[in-house]
Amino acid sequence: MSEKPKLRIGLIGSGFMGKAHVFGFATAGKVFDLPYEIELHTLADVTPETAARAARDFGFARSTDDWRKLVADPEIDVIDITAPNALHKEMALAAIAAGKHTYCEKPLAPLAADAREMAEAAEAKGVKTQVGFNYLCNPMLGLARDMIAGGELGEIRGYRGLHAEDYMADASGPFTFRHDPAGGGALADIGSHALATAEYLLGPITEVMGDCITMIGSRPDGKGGTRKVEVDDVGRAFLRFANGAQGSIEGNWIATGRKMQHDFEVYGTRGALAFTQERFNELHFYSTADAPGRRGFRRIEAAPDHAPYGRFCVAAGHQIGFNDLKAIEVAGYLDAIAGRAPEPFNFRAGLGIQTLVETIHRSSREKRWLAVP
Amino acid sequence: MSEKPKLRIGLIGSGFMGKAHVFGFATAGKVFDLPYEIELHTLADVTPETAARAARDFGFARSTDDWRKLVADPEIDVIDITAPNALHKEMALAAIAAGKHTYCEKPLAPLAADAREMAEAAEAKGVKTQVGFNYLCNPMLGLARDMIAGGELGEIRGYRGLHAEDYMADASGPFTFRHDPAGGGALADIGSHALATAEYLLGPITEVMGDCITMIGSRPDGKGGTRKVEVDDVGRAFLRFANGAQGSIEGNWIATGRKMQHDFEVYGTRGALAFTQERFNELHFYSTADAPGRRGFRRIEAAPDHAPYGRFCVAAGHQIGFNDLKAIEVAGYLDAIAGRAPEPFNFRAGLGIQTLVETIHRSSREKRWLAVP
Amino acid sequence: MSEKPKLRIGLIGSGFMGKAHVFGFATAGKVFDLPYEIELHTLADVTPETAARAARDFGFARSTDDWRKLVADPEIDVIDITAPNALHKEMALAAIAAGKHTYCEKPLAPLAADAREMAEAAEAKGVKTQVGFNYLCNPMLGLARDMIAGGELGEIRGYRGLHAEDYMADASGPFTFRHDPAGGGALADIGSHALATAEYLLGPITEVMGDCITMIGSRPDGKGGTRKVEVDDVGRAFLRFANGAQGSIEGNWIATGRKMQHDFEVYGTRGALAFTQERFNELHFYSTADAPGRRGFRRIEAAPDHAPYGRFCVAAGHQIGFNDLKAIEVAGYLDAIAGRAPEPFNFRAGLGIQTLVETIHRSSREKRWLAVP
Amino acid sequence: MSEKPKLRIGLIGSGFMGKAHVFGFATAGKVFDLPYEIELHTLADVTPETAARAARDFGFARSTDDWRKLVADPEIDVIDITAPNALHKEMALAAIAAGKHTYCEKPLAPLAADAREMAEAAEAKGVKTQVGFNYLCNPMLGLARDMIAGGELGEIRGYRGLHAEDYMADASGPFTFRHDPAGGGALADIGSHALATAEYLLGPITEVMGDCITMIGSRPDGKGGTRKVEVDDVGRAFLRFANGAQGSIEGNWIATGRKMQHDFEVYGTRGALAFTQERFNELHFYSTADAPGRRGFRRIEAAPDHAPYGRFCVAAGHQIGFNDLKAIEVAGYLDAIAGRAPEPFNFRAGLGIQTLVETIHRSSREKRWLAVP
Repeated sequence: MSEKPKLRIGLIGSGFMGKAHVFGFATAGKVFDLPYEIELHTLADVTPETAARAARDFGFARSTDDWRKLVADPEIDVIDITAPNALHKEMALAAIAAGKHTYCEKPLAPLAADAREMAEAAEAKGVKTQVGFNYLCNPMLGLARDMIAGGELGEIRGYRGLHAEDYMADASGPFTFRHDPAGGGALADIGSHALATAEYLLGPITEVMGDCITMIGSRPDGKGGTRKVEVDDVGRAFLRFANGAQGSIEGNWIATGRKMQHDFEVYGTRGALAFTQERFNELHFYSTADAPGRRGFRRIEAAPDHAPYGRFCVAAGHQIGFNDLKAIEVAGYLDAIAGRAPEPFNFRAGLGIQTLVETIHRSSREKRWLAVP
Repeated sequence: MSEKPKLRIGLIGSGFMGKAHVFGFATAGKVFDLPYEIELHTLADVTPETAARAARDFGFARSTDDWRKLVADPEIDVIDITAPNALHKEMALAAIAAGKHTYCEKPLAPLAADAREMAEAAEAKGVKTQVGFNYLCNPMLGLARDMIAGGELGEIRGYRGLHAEDYMADASGPFTFRHDPAGGGALADIGSHALATAEYLLGPITEVMGDCITMIGSRPDGKGGTRKVEVDDVGRAFLRFANGAQGSIEGNWIATGRKMQHDFEVYGTRGALAFTQERFNELHFYSTADAPGRRGFRRIEAAPDHAPYGRFCVAAGHQIGFNDLKAIEVAGYLDAIAGRAPEPFNFRAGLGIQTLVETIHRSSREKRWLAVP
Repeated sequence: MSEKPKLRIGLIGSGFMGKAHVFGFATAGKVFDLPYEIELHTLADVTPETAARAARDFGFARSTDDWRKLVADPEIDVIDITAPNALHKEMALAAIAAGKHTYCEKPLAPLAADAREMAEAAEAKGVKTQVGFNYLCNPMLGLARDMIAGGELGEIRGYRGLHAEDYMADASGPFTFRHDPAGGGALADIGSHALATAEYLLGPITEVMGDCITMIGSRPDGKGGTRKVEVDDVGRAFLRFANGAQGSIEGNWIATGRKMQHDFEVYGTRGALAFTQERFNELHFYSTADAPGRRGFRRIEAAPDHAPYGRFCVAAGHQIGFNDLKAIEVAGYLDAIAGRAPEPFNFRAGLGIQTLVETIHRSSREKRWLAVP
Repeated sequence: MSEKPKLRIGLIGSGFMGKAHVFGFATAGKVFDLPYEIELHTLADVTPETAARAARDFGFARSTDDWRKLVADPEIDVIDITAPNALHKEMALAAIAAGKHTYCEKPLAPLAADAREMAEAAEAKGVKTQVGFNYLCNPMLGLARDMIAGGELGEIRGYRGLHAEDYMADASGPFTFRHDPAGGGALADIGSHALATAEYLLGPITEVMGDCITMIGSRPDGKGGTRKVEVDDVGRAFLRFANGAQGSIEGNWIATGRKMQHDFEVYGTRGALAFTQERFNELHFYSTADAPGRRGFRRIEAAPDHAPYGRFCVAAGHQIGFNDLKAIEVAGYLDAIAGRAPEPFNFRAGLGIQTLVETIHRSSREKRWLAVP
């Protein structure tokens, strides 16, 4: 019935983010007029049983316990990597070498050097890439960026960004891969979102001064002992932007009580914006163009005026959810694969975030301001 | 790959709600462990072209411009009706007569008498039915109901409900089917949601005193003239509940600035709840069990503790969207079809809401309290 | 030092509201350029000891246990009545007869007939009167009224008002004068505030349909037994306004968790306002004049633009408190006494509120709409 | 009438803060059971006319244009300094030398060295001092401190503080004394409040890394030209506390749209607090002791449980205002003068804040972490 070309997806991993990607594919195909018909071709996971069950649950036609077979399969167009961070590089390089478009969950790689290798490989090979910074897909963030770019806030002077949650607040929680000194920590894990949003809105960050602190110095190792933790529980930075603005961000995974405090405020000469992911279908806008005595932060609710919200619902205020952000990410990526639009957030952009994270880490260790390379 | 039995869907209508249903089917199949594999079998709409295009966009294998063929198709298991309200009855009765499970968007029918006929037909035939009151599918409403039922608020004394939007606030907006005296008006269109939520939480409403007002007396008829409007722009009621509580609701479609003000407060002897659909991933809870000096409305954010939120996301605070509510509705209905659970909101329940609406309308006209039949 | 004429105050009562009045006098004298120098002359209370101690604490020069002496004292210019409601009439009539300006805490009298007698006596005598509806003194309510009167909302269509608290939610709380069938109940006690605000903003209410319910049927009588309660715990009404608008109000003193939920929403053809006394230094304003995609309720914070806020603080956002509302009330009353302005809320206005309360009570008993006399 | 000893106040300055102090004296005398009867004795300002008019308006018995006469007047007990910052030191040292209790508006002095001299002089002389950090007088901050001290949040790990306003956001605003390199800038002017609150709640700050930025490099000099600005428009810092916690603060006077964003969040091992001065009668409390699925930030409204709120109002939720904070400050100071309590925030404490500000400034200039001396 469909005359669209098929785009065959090979997914590696079936955990939290693997599931979110599948939701994204499923919803995107219904919500958007995609350039391709998505086919969930093969799912790879660590055991045949896990892979088979996930394939069945998620609607993939085939499964395998060998991700290399997936990468080598000539039928597959896109390799989608949601495996643990430490494996991203090897998998992505193999996929790129095989000429596949490569979609990789964030962080692109534990180290910026690895991310650079991945970005350069993809560019050399000419495949389209995407890193999963899905908060950027929120229509209200697009609105914020448009308002800033369109001068509605005047000249931008200041920024305050935050991503705070409490999933590591319990000191009795075990040591995990997220505590691995190579690439772990709150700044890398969620502070990276705060950095991505900051650059999405204001453009490049040029200088940083970091402050990364380990508050919970050891965690259970799962074998009855404890293991030393060296990564940051809180990572924050002073920032300078290329556009002349200054600001700060914080990533914090021991922020007791906070579940999704991805917040920002932007201050310009003629207006300001305030946002929290806790209520991510709203953007608060203050304008000095309003009459005296009538000024105030105005709560703009997501509506069809704010594309692509209207794809999900023709009526204002009904709200999209977290998984819908993933659908928007998928749609943007497919448009890029089809050559209809630039890559929304490719490996080069992912490298940029990793570089920021590493520069902030280094700045914190060396206790001095650093230019972002 | 799947060993689940197939459930073949025939959809009538491809507008706002038709699309929402398709999103619901698509998401439900990924998010839940459904008892069936959903197959989008055939889509019917008024012209062959409209139907064909919608079928392609939505992923239906076939299309038709004759809904009767859909109903008669022996391959189809479920008839899903999202056609204009005035057609619900004829379509549903035909579907029931053909032995199909029947899923009908709200309102079930313009008149309670029609709704009764539909409910009785379905019960006589033994098919499973569902009416689309999807706000009830919100995990936070489920939480609210559980808290009330579990006595966390003590004995319930009072209720205040509301559903206010502004989509009819512009007096230059044209006369539509929603202004039809048979079943139209703000109370029927959205006040019905406020009534459904009230009964979902507190149980049956037994007496009402209505106040239904037409504020915009005429609207453009689309032919250069105007047409008299007789339905209510605001419909409100005083309420008595079988459990001894009292309260009120309001439906209002000229509430300038409001997009989704589906709010309630419930007051019990030991606690209270406050909710707004404007931030529907939150429920605010006050408990007199908290220590003196430490009491206050506490903002509970949707989390895996609140089933079925965890199906969508394993982490708290990430939020579900409007279309996800539809997926929950679909999942509940499929469980009922499979006999795994009672029908979440069947035609009998839909009849209950229509009866309430009509009783309130009549009470308003007769200017007196009425018992709910 | 001061060349202003003195205005000598005689206060009856030293409880919650007596204290609030004294705070109001003290603050008003500092904040405003009053036409008089206020002298706290004499305080009357039920025993000599209580009166003497309160006089000392509050800064009155003299005290008495005989309010009639206060009224008769030729030195005193203003009799300020904060005694129990049942005594208001006798005291006020005596004060008026003695030619005193009379300031009476709300409610003016338990029965509208009494209030009428008081208003007529004051008008006949030509003294200036004031009833203490201090929420009306909020600069943000003045702003709201100005915005409505100035057409910023277009034509007003709808209103929803509320005053809910929980000070009577505990069924073990004793029977008090507030439960007296003559003038007691939630509607009279705090629903009256909701009514006053409604008329302050939209003008006269012309028709009502009431619903007044006793939820706690008996209370401890303080003597080991219980006493039947006949007054309403919740009193609500449908409303029609002379300006063509419709709406509703509710007074509720068993609203568990609510301490100061004096809220309203006003809907016009071109804008809307939302307010809660819980955050009474804010007014939320929605305007259809804002650009599409940029509309939303805007949180206006109290500022010197909103007179008389600037009297208290020259900087925006610092906020005034409850007692400051009383100071504004005092200042308005003194301006009226000096002939510089009309009485802000005189006995005639207080009679209007009592009449509304009684009409709603009667409407509820007779279960029918009533015109407001 | 009163048998309390008199405390005679000599006030220097009659601007914004002078007025606020007078409101504080007036209200404190009514609200609290003070150890003294306050007498507004003499007001000094720069011209005889200004002083005389202010004295009349504010209720002082005498006035003078020579603050030295005020200081020398043997009848006066307390010298209250609300003159421009640059004069604080000279005035305070003179007052102390004369044996007067000295109350000084913040900042204590432009330079920490001056503040130290003042603190030491006062201690040597044995007079009681007070610096006007009135936000600390908020009952909800007292509640926060008590909750932290009482272990309700567990061990404290993190802090985020802010004081942002927009009164310097307009680049066309003239150069004022607040832009004076000696003691001016956003960090000193309002960031100092953020620092005071941080230490009030968590105890001493031991190390800082500062970032102080001038965004508006020149301002009109009032003579048709412009003048270079060297002070910070935004001043922020990373913090380490003696109790082991880490955090950050920001002072920002170009935060367009913000009028009173004095905010903080405190994260402990078992709970968290969130506060904004924009709604300063509320404190938001999250506790891990709440049942799973029932946790959330709970909005505690100011109530008589939270001393000294009950002095102002016997009912919860009615709210105190900005000027009431000053009354609480006055009451605390008078208790200290009477020897009933320690000085709430004496010159030594004011020196502490100035030291922090200077250390952050120096850290920013030297681009390195500094221990707080």
